[in-house]
Amino acid sequence: MAAVPEQFEGFVIKDTKNWSTFTKEKFTPKVFEEHDVDIQSEVCGVCGSDVHTITGGWGDLPTSPICVGHEVIGKVLRVGSKVTTCKAGDRVGVGAQIQSCMKCKNCKEHNENYCPHKVVDTYGAPYNEDEGHSDVAMKDKNGKQIFSQGGYSSHIRAHEYFVFPIPENIPSVEAAPMMCAGLTTYSPLVRANIGPGKKVAILGIGGLGHFALLFARALGAEVWALSHTPGKKDEALKLGAHHFVSTKDKDWAKPLAFNFDFILNSADMTNEFDLPTYFGTLACNGEFHNVGLPDKPLPEMMAQIFAANGAKLTGSHIGNREEALAMLKLVSEKKLKPMIETIDISEEGCKKAVEKVKVNDVRYRVTLTGFNEAFGTK
Amino acid sequence: MAAVPEQFEGFVIKDTKNWSTFTKEKFTPKVFEEHDVDIQSEVCGVCGSDVHTITGGWGDLPTSPICVGHEVIGKVLRVGSKVTTCKAGDRVGVGAQIQSCMKCKNCKEHNENYCPHKVVDTYGAPYNEDEGHSDVAMKDKNGKQIFSQGGYSSHIRAHEYFVFPIPENIPSVEAAPMMCAGLTTYSPLVRANIGPGKKVAILGIGGLGHFALLFARALGAEVWALSHTPGKKDEALKLGAHHFVSTKDKDWAKPLAFNFDFILNSADMTNEFDLPTYFGTLACNGEFHNVGLPDKPLPEMMAQIFAANGAKLTGSHIGNREEALAMLKLVSEKKLKPMIETIDISEEGCKKAVEKVKVNDVRYRVTLTGFNEAFGTK
Repeated sequence: MAAVPEQFEGFVIKDTKNWSTFTKEKFTPKVFEEHDVDIQSEVCGVCGSDVHTITGGWGDLPTSPICVGHEVIGKVLRVGSKVTTCKAGDRVGVGAQIQSCMKCKNCKEHNENYCPHKVVDTYGAPYNEDEGHSDVAMKDKNGKQIFSQGGYSSHIRAHEYFVFPIPENIPSVEAAPMMCAGLTTYSPLVRANIGPGKKVAILGIGGLGHFALLFARALGAEVWALSHTPGKKDEALKLGAHHFVSTKDKDWAKPLAFNFDFILNSADMTNEFDLPTYFGTLACNGEFHNVGLPDKPLPEMMAQIFAANGAKLTGSHIGNREEALAMLKLVSEKKLKPMIETIDISEEGCKKAVEKVKVNDVRYRVTLTGFNEAFGTK
Repeated sequence: MAAVPEQFEGFVIKDTKNWSTFTKEKFTPKVFEEHDVDIQSEVCGVCGSDVHTITGGWGDLPTSPICVGHEVIGKVLRVGSKVTTCKAGDRVGVGAQIQSCMKCKNCKEHNENYCPHKVVDTYGAPYNEDEGHSDVAMKDKNGKQIFSQGGYSSHIRAHEYFVFPIPENIPSVEAAPMMCAGLTTYSPLVRANIGPGKKVAILGIGGLGHFALLFARALGAEVWALSHTPGKKDEALKLGAHHFVSTKDKDWAKPLAFNFDFILNSADMTNEFDLPTYFGTLACNGEFHNVGLPDKPLPEMMAQIFAANGAKLTGSHIGNREEALAMLKLVSEKKLKPMIETIDISEEGCKKAVEKVKVNDVRYRVTLTGFNEAFGTK
């Protein structure tokens, strides 16, 4: 087993103006604690969140340089003295969250993804001492606050609760985007009890939406793909949709009035949507659920648009550990196959990957590969 | 038993500029059909909807002259040949809906209040032939479309399904506002399974909110009243709140982070609210439910505000028949007492009532009384 280096190495960006200019640099990870797992990264998915972050769409960079990436699959090199969820040699994944307080009501009720005290994002979040239980900032040798750094890198250190064993029959390049995009769509579907007898629309067939099609179908629902790109019809049907609707068609919504129990909106241009049209396709007390997070506000809406059918406008943030494990089990058992492009990691590879994601030129998700070559690991 | 006159008589307004200028006029009710019930009105509540309608806040008048009012209690004079829900002599109530198609999926699933084909509002809605099953407009002798006309009037004619028997121990002046305000708050509470163990905030202690306090407490929840009027504290506690929070206090929301399973927002100035502050008080997957319908759009919001706790923004439209009957049973059994002002109906009385409601100078609901004197009925 390879040793864990004192510093990790990753492809970082330094400011939002040069958001696709990556350089390879070393950085100091958080202090290794009792529940930590050290992972040698094998692949990392490229998420829309990475692009929103490095372009400044969601605000200033939380720290600079920053190494993004929160869809990591790799091999466990070392575990802390109290770790029970995995062991050295295991193939595991890490998603968009890497620590929570583990003690509060939300954490105890399996809502650690909504921990009000300490949701530590996988990159760009400040660490505190004592596995986040302390209010004291965790600092490096030079007295500088340590931030989490993401998966476009050689290694990642994560709290064991946020490390998920990967079933053997799921290839790493496919497992990677499940860590964020997969879980982000799986969690709201199961929390809304999607299954046989439910009518579900997946709105926006991109990285998130293509996973949602796979999952909604596998969970037993009747599934519609709604897209403004008619050319995606064949792939949408292949991924799991029973029906395809082009939202470019005039009056597309009319035959679907009061139809859907659940709309999973994975588009991130919702600010340009005519919400009342979409709400009109919801069944009584149906749910319009946003998982895409646009840089701009939602369209202006009257409270009245909720009254015609008792509609619900909802949102969520990734999912919890149980949901991550259940999703991986479903994928493994049903042999679900996402559609993934791969690009070898490098300064150029990262640039190409984020630029493709920025313009939605991906079908349907990019996974960065070739980590051993790039970082000299093995 | 008094006879049913051919024309009914009511206090009407003619244009939104003179929204509080009422005149007493006769009007032709819908044609009497097999499922219809004729009711001699005894009292009628004054609803915020009446004011939004006559002031033009929700758009142009649907018909003119218009007689508003949709919280009617009265005595059944006559029933159609197929009526089974009540009989002549019964004391009954009619709320904000007076007909639906009775045949579609929503109607059959007890969501007649969301019937997509024919929710006929109690005033201002065009009637069709054949109890609304036909597409042909119902016309009077002069060939003019017949619209529903509301309860500031001598009589009302309603489909039996929307006529609710009133338990003996509920006074008519108190039962009246339950027909709309009561049901509007009761339905979302029970659809959200509010009961023991749930934490509920009632936001805005007015006509709707004061009913919500009564119901949330009677259903067994832990209840908070949130109001920007500290002077309402004593009454709110008396009505059922366990806790009172003044939203004028700086940082009022901080100790309530992640607290509420359900916020029933009965305010109709939501357009001025800082929604993220309220959303921050919701527990995981908690619900912010609007029953007030402002004239202006909801505040601009980012999709992100739903992500911190998986919040739901929801709304509803009155309730169904089962909920109306269950509400009346709860009120009767638990001897719930709303706080009601009364004003005798007349041109002056109607003017005074709607002007008081317009400026929220009501604690907490006005019921118009003295119908026999005003209309010469008995």
